[in-house]
Amino acid sequence: MKKFINAVGDVEKEMIQGILKVYPDKIKAIDCDGVLIRKEKNENKVAVISGGGSGHEPSFGGYVGKGMLDAVIAGAVYTSPSADHIYEAIKSVATPKGVLMIPMNYTGDIMNFEMAAEMAEMEGIKTEMVVTNDDVAVDNSLYTVGRRGVAGTVFVHKIAGAMAETGASLEEVKAVAEKANANVRTMGVAINPSTIPAAGKPGFELLDDEMEVGIGIHGEPGVRKEKLKSANEIVDMLLEKILSDLDFSGSDVAIMVNGSGGTPLMELYIINNHVHDVLLSKGITIYKTFVGNYMTSIEQEGFSLTLFKLDEQLKNLLDAPTDTPAMKV
Amino acid sequence: MKKFINAVGDVEKEMIQGILKVYPDKIKAIDCDGVLIRKEKNENKVAVISGGGSGHEPSFGGYVGKGMLDAVIAGAVYTSPSADHIYEAIKSVATPKGVLMIPMNYTGDIMNFEMAAEMAEMEGIKTEMVVTNDDVAVDNSLYTVGRRGVAGTVFVHKIAGAMAETGASLEEVKAVAEKANANVRTMGVAINPSTIPAAGKPGFELLDDEMEVGIGIHGEPGVRKEKLKSANEIVDMLLEKILSDLDFSGSDVAIMVNGSGGTPLMELYIINNHVHDVLLSKGITIYKTFVGNYMTSIEQEGFSLTLFKLDEQLKNLLDAPTDTPAMKV
Repeated sequence: MKKFINAVGDVEKEMIQGILKVYPDKIKAIDCDGVLIRKEKNENKVAVISGGGSGHEPSFGGYVGKGMLDAVIAGAVYTSPSADHIYEAIKSVATPKGVLMIPMNYTGDIMNFEMAAEMAEMEGIKTEMVVTNDDVAVDNSLYTVGRRGVAGTVFVHKIAGAMAETGASLEEVKAVAEKANANVRTMGVAINPSTIPAAGKPGFELLDDEMEVGIGIHGEPGVRKEKLKSANEIVDMLLEKILSDLDFSGSDVAIMVNGSGGTPLMELYIINNHVHDVLLSKGITIYKTFVGNYMTSIEQEGFSLTLFKLDEQLKNLLDAPTDTPAMKV
Repeated sequence: MKKFINAVGDVEKEMIQGILKVYPDKIKAIDCDGVLIRKEKNENKVAVISGGGSGHEPSFGGYVGKGMLDAVIAGAVYTSPSADHIYEAIKSVATPKGVLMIPMNYTGDIMNFEMAAEMAEMEGIKTEMVVTNDDVAVDNSLYTVGRRGVAGTVFVHKIAGAMAETGASLEEVKAVAEKANANVRTMGVAINPSTIPAAGKPGFELLDDEMEVGIGIHGEPGVRKEKLKSANEIVDMLLEKILSDLDFSGSDVAIMVNGSGGTPLMELYIINNHVHDVLLSKGITIYKTFVGNYMTSIEQEGFSLTLFKLDEQLKNLLDAPTDTPAMKV
């Protein structure tokens, strides 16, 4: 295992410290490992929170701030945060308007967010939950009942965070987060796996000419191995699956070409070039394009494509001001 | 070679097309391969330009826009752009106030920028040049007489671009760019090399427990191979070299923890954590921190540390509004 780390057991703690030292004006820690919250609290809005395992940076610490998230809870690498930590995060950011939790669909995460919400409700904190499940690659997986939440989650956080910023009610913020999740679809591939520091070896193995299709974000194998194809052929394959899952025809969409952590920007731009060509040829209008590392799997070399179907409300919320470490609008 | 590309000969062209499709509101192409310019021309400012080989994304296309660069010229991967292309870029963005060229110190780049400037001068365009050379690892290299320009170049572009935006004269913008370059120092390491698409094999080889120390940004080997150490030990080694090269004691500095393209953000934050601790213990005040992929070497796994010594003028220019794809202030 080749990594720039110190002791394996210190990875998560040192990473959190390293993030805090970059953005002392935007985010702060609370007295609970793995929890980062927004520096300034606004009592007049719904608090929006998320969390999951570490290893997906900049998700989710990079999205704490104005117009997105109020708190995030990071577990160990690829491991659910505990219900206790989620509960502490909820208490720290809760407002009279309530707390909307938007975790991704992984069984452990959901269970712990639900337990934390029950504990918070007993203290009179209103909570609601929207679970993201944008991955079209699988119907169920090793870690989920139902589809996995992957990179499209970032769009759901952006939309919910912008809506909360308007002073909307918990029910209104929840409704728009549900609409965003219903409108977003993602699928990914990888050509090199990631290694969990504590495991010391890769999550799967690939031959020199192979790729994993339908990859998740936790280092787990995808749906199938295939011979590596050209960037354009891979894009065609992913778009075919995404477009057959939801009718995007005639729609305005936002797209995300998301790198898995070890994929050079050069390749993400080459991929984006073809995504635009294909969508335009199908009469789909690209309203906004996001290319970069938004939801990673440590050093995995791979990418995912996300399509997000927009109406006027979603466009306005997508364009609303955002000031977080990893997303500024 | 495992990459998400199509034909090897199309990499640069498709990448440029892919960039343009993300930022149609900020950057545009001219009728000359590899040249990207700022969408809106401002005749009342010095134009600031740079360029070099492709493979360093987001450098430099990602820094075209308000407060940074007016044009960039990208050659093939790790290859100097031609004098003709640089000349076309100069003509496209030249204003009555003149053009400041800020390439990095590589022999081929400098020669071609100089030739282009001579051609432009014959048409009555005023040009000046500041060459960045922030790499403390080597005094001369395979590609340079004198030190190489590496990630610190991004700070020089930021400062010069901000100064140009104030309406300052060519001489004033040149002077502050020279001051920025004189105040910036960088050194890097890598644990996995990059592969030039047209070459098809890595620029150097490393054993499973080795790192390249003093790495450049063109896939070339570094100064020496060493056994891989802990992140903290590597940081200590790099800082020792940087701090012995320029007196930073008692200064305010900006720092950059720059990923080489394949390095996960997790590790960059762990590195940043220790950089802060060491600098604080030495009485050096960190004014601003940049952690991310600013100057890459395709998919190379590595990082560089940059220290940038600030005075009041440099602080103001560093904080000045910037609106480019890869840097927003």
